[in-house]
Amino acid sequence: MTRIYFNEVVTRDGFQIEPNFIPTDEKVALVNELSQCGYAKIEVTSFTSAKAIPMLRDAEEVMGRIHRQSGVEYTVLVPNVRGAERALESRADEFNLVMSTSETHNWSNLRMPREKSFAGLSDVIALTAGRVPINVSLSACFGCPMEGDVPPDEVLRWAHRFAEQGVRGLTICDTTGMAHPGQVSQLCNALRQHFPGLQLTLHFHNTRGMGLANVVAAAHAGIDRFDGSLGGLGGCPYAPGASGNICSEDAIHMLDAMGFDTGMDLPRLLQVARRLPDVVGHSVPGQVAKAGRTCDLHPVPEEALKLKQENT
Amino acid sequence: MTRIYFNEVVTRDGFQIEPNFIPTDEKVALVNELSQCGYAKIEVTSFTSAKAIPMLRDAEEVMGRIHRQSGVEYTVLVPNVRGAERALESRADEFNLVMSTSETHNWSNLRMPREKSFAGLSDVIALTAGRVPINVSLSACFGCPMEGDVPPDEVLRWAHRFAEQGVRGLTICDTTGMAHPGQVSQLCNALRQHFPGLQLTLHFHNTRGMGLANVVAAAHAGIDRFDGSLGGLGGCPYAPGASGNICSEDAIHMLDAMGFDTGMDLPRLLQVARRLPDVVGHSVPGQVAKAGRTCDLHPVPEEALKLKQENT
Repeated sequence: MTRIYFNEVVTRDGFQIEPNFIPTDEKVALVNELSQCGYAKIEVTSFTSAKAIPMLRDAEEVMGRIHRQSGVEYTVLVPNVRGAERALESRADEFNLVMSTSETHNWSNLRMPREKSFAGLSDVIALTAGRVPINVSLSACFGCPMEGDVPPDEVLRWAHRFAEQGVRGLTICDTTGMAHPGQVSQLCNALRQHFPGLQLTLHFHNTRGMGLANVVAAAHAGIDRFDGSLGGLGGCPYAPGASGNICSEDAIHMLDAMGFDTGMDLPRLLQVARRLPDVVGHSVPGQVAKAGRTCDLHPVPEEALKLKQENT
Repeated sequence: MTRIYFNEVVTRDGFQIEPNFIPTDEKVALVNELSQCGYAKIEVTSFTSAKAIPMLRDAEEVMGRIHRQSGVEYTVLVPNVRGAERALESRADEFNLVMSTSETHNWSNLRMPREKSFAGLSDVIALTAGRVPINVSLSACFGCPMEGDVPPDEVLRWAHRFAEQGVRGLTICDTTGMAHPGQVSQLCNALRQHFPGLQLTLHFHNTRGMGLANVVAAAHAGIDRFDGSLGGLGGCPYAPGASGNICSEDAIHMLDAMGFDTGMDLPRLLQVARRLPDVVGHSVPGQVAKAGRTCDLHPVPEEALKLKQENT
């Protein structure tokens, strides 16, 4: 069985755009529960400024209070050198750096040109100097909502620049759900050829319903790491009403059914997922938590049962 | 480019479980709008008893009032000989008959054993005697929500029995969204081998988020016909809160992006889809109508534009 590794991003990427502050206790409890479900990584929080993302202002406290499960890596988003210093203090297992492959998207999200982002992230890499594994998340790899197409060569070019600096992994992000399965197959094949020694993670959004189709395309192209967000939490500012990140439990349920070894305890994960609407105060897009697994059978409706017994 | 044909089922399968009656005028207007969008078929209504499905009690009137577009086949669900007589009067282009491959599911949905369904549908086929092409929809082909697994051989067995009676096509239904892409590839390959001369249509539900992934798997296995429901309308009684039929415009958007030739006018279809929540009085699961197509670009946020201009 092919092994697939999951990285849960709900407490960072999922919570980040929630309107109401989620109490630190809830975040710690959720990470602790997720730690029991079989994830390879959990992206716990972000060491960004409290002003920029008030939701994650408790990054130090959350990192300090979670019970770390052996076998799970606790990764954090690190935007700059100041964030890296805080993340080092918090003993994160991995730093996740982020920039966009689209110039306009980088300006919109990070308010600077790509070269300036690259220089800043290079400083972070230099600062950590091999003490902590580095992952770089490249945004908008399958298209920019403002520029349109992002050529695969542009993605490979930025990937190469970070690979040269010795990063451990790259996350290839379809930040606004523009990828389709054909495109995913092509880019994943190219990435695996160019970077056979790197951890390659794919980060999909379900903005246009193609999220799980893209997971299948990537898995068939040999990708074995995926980001997912519990309940599909985390939206897209360009598509109000549309769903955001792919839903972890839906993706895991599918890959399990297809015979991949995700190493996940799906029933336990579904228990956690079913608690999520209470944590965030609204319903979430995930489907399997509502519908149950395909193997969760339903009783025969009483009327049908009676009819059948009377007539056979 | 590989041609893919779409059959729109919203006014039958989609509307069927809506709680509030949708006026006949609305149904006629919707079918007329859908007729302009490039569908190969539209399943307009069902000639079932008004008591069983009050929503479709206006079947004759709808069929009599729609403007038939050349190139579009107007198909109807026909449950029995009485329905077939009504459907013949209404000059439907195709009769769609339905039974389940699962004994328990057939009892639950149709209140009779499969053999009785088969005998009744055989009577319908004999009655029409080649005057109208017949399609048979086989339910629960990828699993029964009560029995669990439905072996592929069981699906092939029922398919053969109908093929022997000269039906034109078969629709293989994942009635409660239990199929996964690996299973879809296998069954579709087997069906294409066994029935090279039949129209084979796949009918997926998105109950567990796998709908579009299954469409890709089927298309890659050479299937060129799909059912879809505008907005993803139509639910599943076993999974409250979960979505039902795959969303036509989301599936078409994906296949178009992948380079398939669906023959559809997607912008026009999205206009119709965006009117659907008003028709049914609630939001619908479809995503592309909310998020826009991947090629619909967004303006650069003003703040980012200003910042960029000041700094470059």
